[in-house]
Amino acid sequence: MKGVILEYINTTDDLRKLPQDDLPELALELRHYIVDTLASHPGHLASSLGTVELAIALHYVFNTPDDKVIWDVGHQAYAHKILTGRRDSFPTIRTYGGISGFPRMDESPYDAFGTGHSSTSISAALGMAMASKLQGNLQRQHIAVIGDGSMTGGEAFEALNNAGVSKANLLVILNDNGISIDKAVGGLSHYLVNITASPKYNRLKEHVWRKVGGDEKESKGRNFFSKTLSSMKSMLLEGSNLFESLGFRYFGPVDGHDVKRLVEVLGQLKDLKGPRLLHIVTTKGKGMRPAEQNPVVYHAPGKYDAETGLQIKQQTAHQPLKYQEVFGHTIVELAERNDRIVGITPAMPTGCSLNIMMQQMPDRAFDVGIAEQHAVTFAAGLAAQGMVPFCNIYSSFMQRAYDQVIHDVALQKLHVVFCLDRAGLVGDDGATHHGVFDLACFRSIPNLTICAPMDEHELRNMMYTSQLEGIGPFVIRYPRGASVHADWRNDFEQLPIGKGRCLHEGTQVALLTIGHVGNNAAAAAERLRQQGYDPGHYDMRFVKPLDGELLDAIASRYKWLVTVEDGCLEGGFGSAVLEHLQMRHAADTTKPLPTVVRLGVPDAFVQHGPVARLQHDCGYDTDAIESCLLDIYNKM
Amino acid sequence: MKGVILEYINTTDDLRKLPQDDLPELALELRHYIVDTLASHPGHLASSLGTVELAIALHYVFNTPDDKVIWDVGHQAYAHKILTGRRDSFPTIRTYGGISGFPRMDESPYDAFGTGHSSTSISAALGMAMASKLQGNLQRQHIAVIGDGSMTGGEAFEALNNAGVSKANLLVILNDNGISIDKAVGGLSHYLVNITASPKYNRLKEHVWRKVGGDEKESKGRNFFSKTLSSMKSMLLEGSNLFESLGFRYFGPVDGHDVKRLVEVLGQLKDLKGPRLLHIVTTKGKGMRPAEQNPVVYHAPGKYDAETGLQIKQQTAHQPLKYQEVFGHTIVELAERNDRIVGITPAMPTGCSLNIMMQQMPDRAFDVGIAEQHAVTFAAGLAAQGMVPFCNIYSSFMQRAYDQVIHDVALQKLHVVFCLDRAGLVGDDGATHHGVFDLACFRSIPNLTICAPMDEHELRNMMYTSQLEGIGPFVIRYPRGASVHADWRNDFEQLPIGKGRCLHEGTQVALLTIGHVGNNAAAAAERLRQQGYDPGHYDMRFVKPLDGELLDAIASRYKWLVTVEDGCLEGGFGSAVLEHLQMRHAADTTKPLPTVVRLGVPDAFVQHGPVARLQHDCGYDTDAIESCLLDIYNKM
Repeated sequence: MKGVILEYINTTDDLRKLPQDDLPELALELRHYIVDTLASHPGHLASSLGTVELAIALHYVFNTPDDKVIWDVGHQAYAHKILTGRRDSFPTIRTYGGISGFPRMDESPYDAFGTGHSSTSISAALGMAMASKLQGNLQRQHIAVIGDGSMTGGEAFEALNNAGVSKANLLVILNDNGISIDKAVGGLSHYLVNITASPKYNRLKEHVWRKVGGDEKESKGRNFFSKTLSSMKSMLLEGSNLFESLGFRYFGPVDGHDVKRLVEVLGQLKDLKGPRLLHIVTTKGKGMRPAEQNPVVYHAPGKYDAETGLQIKQQTAHQPLKYQEVFGHTIVELAERNDRIVGITPAMPTGCSLNIMMQQMPDRAFDVGIAEQHAVTFAAGLAAQGMVPFCNIYSSFMQRAYDQVIHDVALQKLHVVFCLDRAGLVGDDGATHHGVFDLACFRSIPNLTICAPMDEHELRNMMYTSQLEGIGPFVIRYPRGASVHADWRNDFEQLPIGKGRCLHEGTQVALLTIGHVGNNAAAAAERLRQQGYDPGHYDMRFVKPLDGELLDAIASRYKWLVTVEDGCLEGGFGSAVLEHLQMRHAADTTKPLPTVVRLGVPDAFVQHGPVARLQHDCGYDTDAIESCLLDIYNKM
Repeated sequence: MKGVILEYINTTDDLRKLPQDDLPELALELRHYIVDTLASHPGHLASSLGTVELAIALHYVFNTPDDKVIWDVGHQAYAHKILTGRRDSFPTIRTYGGISGFPRMDESPYDAFGTGHSSTSISAALGMAMASKLQGNLQRQHIAVIGDGSMTGGEAFEALNNAGVSKANLLVILNDNGISIDKAVGGLSHYLVNITASPKYNRLKEHVWRKVGGDEKESKGRNFFSKTLSSMKSMLLEGSNLFESLGFRYFGPVDGHDVKRLVEVLGQLKDLKGPRLLHIVTTKGKGMRPAEQNPVVYHAPGKYDAETGLQIKQQTAHQPLKYQEVFGHTIVELAERNDRIVGITPAMPTGCSLNIMMQQMPDRAFDVGIAEQHAVTFAAGLAAQGMVPFCNIYSSFMQRAYDQVIHDVALQKLHVVFCLDRAGLVGDDGATHHGVFDLACFRSIPNLTICAPMDEHELRNMMYTSQLEGIGPFVIRYPRGASVHADWRNDFEQLPIGKGRCLHEGTQVALLTIGHVGNNAAAAAERLRQQGYDPGHYDMRFVKPLDGELLDAIASRYKWLVTVEDGCLEGGFGSAVLEHLQMRHAADTTKPLPTVVRLGVPDAFVQHGPVARLQHDCGYDTDAIESCLLDIYNKM
């Protein structure tokens, strides 16, 4: 299914040898290859279908990898990967040991900069452009490809503001498809629709291409036209385009699926100097009818039928609901009782299931765009006026708003409830997306309450407790994927803040766990009991405040403690336990100090693969916990 | 010196009773009061002088505190504080137990939202506007006052993008003085200069005020004119102004020192609906000649002569240089030897002393504007192309770029050197500015090397070591203020990565310290020795990697360890020591486990005041360390 042309493209040199007339056919083949492969090897389908022509044109026109192309977010870079030496390994994408779903510098020299989180590409490309300038390399091109959704992230604006006055050899390609993962929102998105439809711009566009293009190959002539163009555009446009306002030269909009046109335009823009922005318009899911019609569903559709495009649904009738869905239903249930509750998501309504509330209570649920910093301070503003915002952000994206949580919420003790979705190891998305730093970095912040549910009933109780009168800033973190019980809907119960619970009172060794990973520990403990040992198990529920009373009782009863967390070991939950035990011991040295083994994510970035496998590698799946316990009992 | 009118203003009601004709005189009195007071009670002078008329006009026109005014950054809010019940306590500003230099919700109901870090005001005001709407309060006004410098921060853009489509009752006042703390930089700043000077805008402005203003008090008429105005503006401006592009209605520019004009304009804008932006032009330091001429120096000038405005220089001839200055000179020295080195600061060239390099090597030192996220990824881009960027960011502002350090630098092992200035307790700026979370939140990140110098020679050696070939991502954190030695310039020495040093080998109890606060510990140890005890002292130098070998030796030698750090105890340096000791003990329980007392910032936000006093309160000044040691020796 690789197609006759694609089969021949082993390097970008091969690509550049193709006659231009073959490029549309190559695009077709690439698209087929992506659709066929992802049917059985799930990945980010729709975004990558939207950038097939762009990927071809970029590598056709530019001297990659010496010229640098940076794909913002990076899940749209599949065609790029296939064209740059990874055609045959493409079916391993996002699998354990296989190629990554995102660009990675250590995977290929063509991946000029690793991405995963949005809105970084312009900053990185500007840095590279400055480096080339300082190194005296005036030839090298630096290109950031960024979607209209990513463009709303504050960092992108910071970079535009800086680049606009830099004279850097920088080309920003704005890939405008009106959608990020969900539909793009905000003023910028309206603006792009306006300029795309505006006759003034389309007229201007014609001028532009006539003037810089044509047969003027001679560099003086090109230079002359480039100057003419500049002054023309200045007259027409000075300060009248958002990007021009910031010092960029704006070109477009151009049809991003017309590969020959893209080749032409990029060829022309290559020789212009300074910061330029090319606005291309693409269709997310291009070329696959169901994906074009429903790009949100086909963003990452899982397995589907390659012929019809129809999704292949797993049998999930008797499986537990996902934590995400439980969150989505529960916030509506709580909001129906408490009219102070509102919901906030930065551009992930479908992923986190806030879309349920957005549909049922459109006035009370906000998608603020790719804007984690704003999401948190916006929540703080709502809370300052007496509302109780549930701000749902993926754990790894919440790293973007660390300062706002400290400065705007915790310092002011505002009643914001943070729901950190996709906490812990997330699986196929890999290193950029694992949510492993949250417990460690958040527990340093005063005034926060931090907890993690071991199952969906706990999640519901934590959500219920979090919104009660007088509760301050509150953090609930839970993993991606299936919860535990067949029946998710329990009656709400108020949980005592900062109190853990004993699941099993044992002897000699106790497991102390936080969150869903406690299920691994419970399974391991059960195996141990079948082998004649009797480890205790405590679900601490709260990382902050930690249940000191319970810990004291545990320390008096057991000689060894094993802490288990789905997060980094440096500074995490286990360290909080160490801190408490030592404090107690230092205050009264007659109090025993148990020996503690901490299980969790070690001090290294974890790659992509199935969660179970990654937890195994990190040493906290059920097997690993079992052998840790056995080791300890054998030592005693 | 309070003036005859100001003396009478005890509440905003008093202010609102004044005839408009008295307002210019009140402005004069306010300005004198600020200048006179800050002459001997140092604070943020120049910014506050620039907003005197605005503060008067806002409280005159709006029904504060029910209407909400949020001062972005907040160091320009002194006139606001004086007018809102804090006239007589104003001389206590920034002193221990006195009023804060920034707005604080718990200080006054007029401080609608606490600020300190930049670019949060629009998000917070939008949140409040949404809350009012949901609560059915359509009267309440929500106003964000934000400088042109703060407007470059990404969060402000995220908020504009979200607000522009929100129909929120939101007024953004862009206080444009062309300067943040240093001169404002970037495309936005150029743009604002352009529109301020543009005849088209000035013409339009006349239309605007004629149409909405005048004697049309009757609401229908006003409504009619407001509609006319909208359509006029649409015709002239659609998409042709950066703020209009995002969905705001733009008004201005207006002279921000014409208080009667401001009252008029704000009165008119009050009755318009939806998101509006008023662009006012002010002079930082207005009304005080030296401050107008040199607003960077007079941003926070320290003590000065109230009559002449001339700064009163402390006798510093024989005092050690500040760490900041040592950084500033040393980076130039290193950059002269290593042409891969570049310097980056997000808008703090004077504060961090990168201005020295910017002057001597303008091509190699970058002020990227208020843009911490961009600064870090920009550095990563430079490093990806073989440069060695020194990215200097205040510790508390670095919280803004936590994700970029993880995602763009550490994950890719890029050779960026982060210099975290103003780490630890910073003193007068208080809770928003203390840099206490860095050690805890950064040591969770794989691939980072993290160290802190005990004196300026160490700082120079760490900087020297950090830029050597093959060193990866590197973090150096150091405090605000004076270093240690009379002669700061030592010969560079390469430090072994992850190795601490023994300062004194003692008995029974050992101090383990990190960074400058080790000097407190050394002084305490000296006092103990004079009392016949002999505590050991180890400067660990590196928090990551921690010197395990040295720790093992220490654990074998001493029964008690006392860790001291100028940072938060939850997850910080002391916890890293606990982690190592427990790991060693769990692996071989015959290895002794010393009792550890950790000194540092407890789990609460620390207020403002002199650093020595705050360290005392937190329990790690020399006195506190001394009594901690004595307690331990007495227990033994």
